[in-house]
Amino acid sequence: MKSRTVAAILLSCLATTAMADGYGDDRAAIENLQGRYVLAMDFNDPDEYAGVFAEDGVLDWAGGEVVGREAIRKFMMDGVYNLSRNAQAAAWPATTRHFITNQVIEVYGDTAKAVTYWFQVNNNAASREAAYGLFGHYEDELARIDGEWLFSRRTIYNEGIQTRARAGMENPAPEKGQY
Amino acid sequence: MKSRTVAAILLSCLATTAMADGYGDDRAAIENLQGRYVLAMDFNDPDEYAGVFAEDGVLDWAGGEVVGREAIRKFMMDGVYNLSRNAQAAAWPATTRHFITNQVIEVYGDTAKAVTYWFQVNNNAASREAAYGLFGHYEDELARIDGEWLFSRRTIYNEGIQTRARAGMENPAPEKGQY
Amino acid sequence: MKSRTVAAILLSCLATTAMADGYGDDRAAIENLQGRYVLAMDFNDPDEYAGVFAEDGVLDWAGGEVVGREAIRKFMMDGVYNLSRNAQAAAWPATTRHFITNQVIEVYGDTAKAVTYWFQVNNNAASREAAYGLFGHYEDELARIDGEWLFSRRTIYNEGIQTRARAGMENPAPEKGQY
Repeated sequence: MKSRTVAAILLSCLATTAMADGYGDDRAAIENLQGRYVLAMDFNDPDEYAGVFAEDGVLDWAGGEVVGREAIRKFMMDGVYNLSRNAQAAAWPATTRHFITNQVIEVYGDTAKAVTYWFQVNNNAASREAAYGLFGHYEDELARIDGEWLFSRRTIYNEGIQTRARAGMENPAPEKGQY
Repeated sequence: MKSRTVAAILLSCLATTAMADGYGDDRAAIENLQGRYVLAMDFNDPDEYAGVFAEDGVLDWAGGEVVGREAIRKFMMDGVYNLSRNAQAAAWPATTRHFITNQVIEVYGDTAKAVTYWFQVNNNAASREAAYGLFGHYEDELARIDGEWLFSRRTIYNEGIQTRARAGMENPAPEKGQY
Repeated sequence: MKSRTVAAILLSCLATTAMADGYGDDRAAIENLQGRYVLAMDFNDPDEYAGVFAEDGVLDWAGGEVVGREAIRKFMMDGVYNLSRNAQAAAWPATTRHFITNQVIEVYGDTAKAVTYWFQVNNNAASREAAYGLFGHYEDELARIDGEWLFSRRTIYNEGIQTRARAGMENPAPEKGQY
């Protein structure tokens, strides 16, 4: 076997490997990021909440745009939607939780777009009975920065708020990426 | 190092690579397909809805079987379950959304079987308050066609419809595939 | 090309491959295990329910700890939470289903930690209307045993039970692992 042949096969092998670790690994990392976002929000963890955004990341929510990781951290510190604020004991401390599902994630090299459905549950009533509340979806832009997927922009749609609803509008699924 | 040894290691390397891009990538592609199905349904996008099925794919729902991509497209065009039909404004346009979770996905080479839970939420009431409605699960057969995972058969079970319920029956989890 | 060079490139190739099949495949296998757990619970399948645990796995639920696969199988046989017990017909057989979302999964070689949200839906009312019930989250420890991911410990938190609630406590997201 000539060195040239060996080199060609090696390159092909490396190329296959590179392709192999494409969509499955990228999607896995992005799903995990989405999960960490929710835990940080529901358990009121400003550092972790800010940490899922890029340094210049943007959070676009019902109150407007919050620009940059430091502003996002402060936004959470200020408790704008401090979901553990209901944690005072009646029967026992209450909580609000967000459940995210239906993740469409499309990867284009080092950027990605995602749509994720969310709905909210709480047991704020003194009885601590579960109550199901708002629902909506996220539309996200993500970037791979130093090998780590982060949100560059998260837009929160909310069917319970007139100005943030997207009912009956066109399919928000992003263009297909690499699988 | 002898050429034969090099070739053997290369083959082993390629084999490992091939195995490596197995379950993670396949599951990721199938999860994404499942997400795109839901968006197409909830946002009433007949082309995308039909496009997640194989050319001869079958949709088995409460109204019976719809056979083939073109028939499935027409089924959505006819608005049989046009979920944006409630989008007319009262307080503001309403919507119905499907949330899918618990995906058991088993891959057997170029075919796969999947079970997915679903439940429905809407804000059709004039108050636009969230209401939680039907729930059930999907049982799917999938095929990899020209490198793309598509539904070859989707069966919709629905605990809110007597003839489509599967309560108390045997575990629908498919036989374990390749991980 | 010298043999040493070839060997070096091959090792690099194999190393890349090994890394490539890391997080995406591991997360996929663990998500699937989580899904199979739920189906086994909701469809009352003691063998499958026990089979997702390691031989010495521990289930830590509202009633205390159940230790070892055989005890866990018996626990399900005894129908402590036999969710198909409501399957007798009124309008038609009823069911209870668990929906799991927001999976944060961190892998550290052959062990992993995971947090997963869950909520419960049933149609036990004679009308068979959907009713949404309890919610909470799982905190899991997992181990890869003979190449298969299994639960070594599953702890069930439940916001509907005073002694199992975790509202307002610190973020349960495990330390970041390998991606």
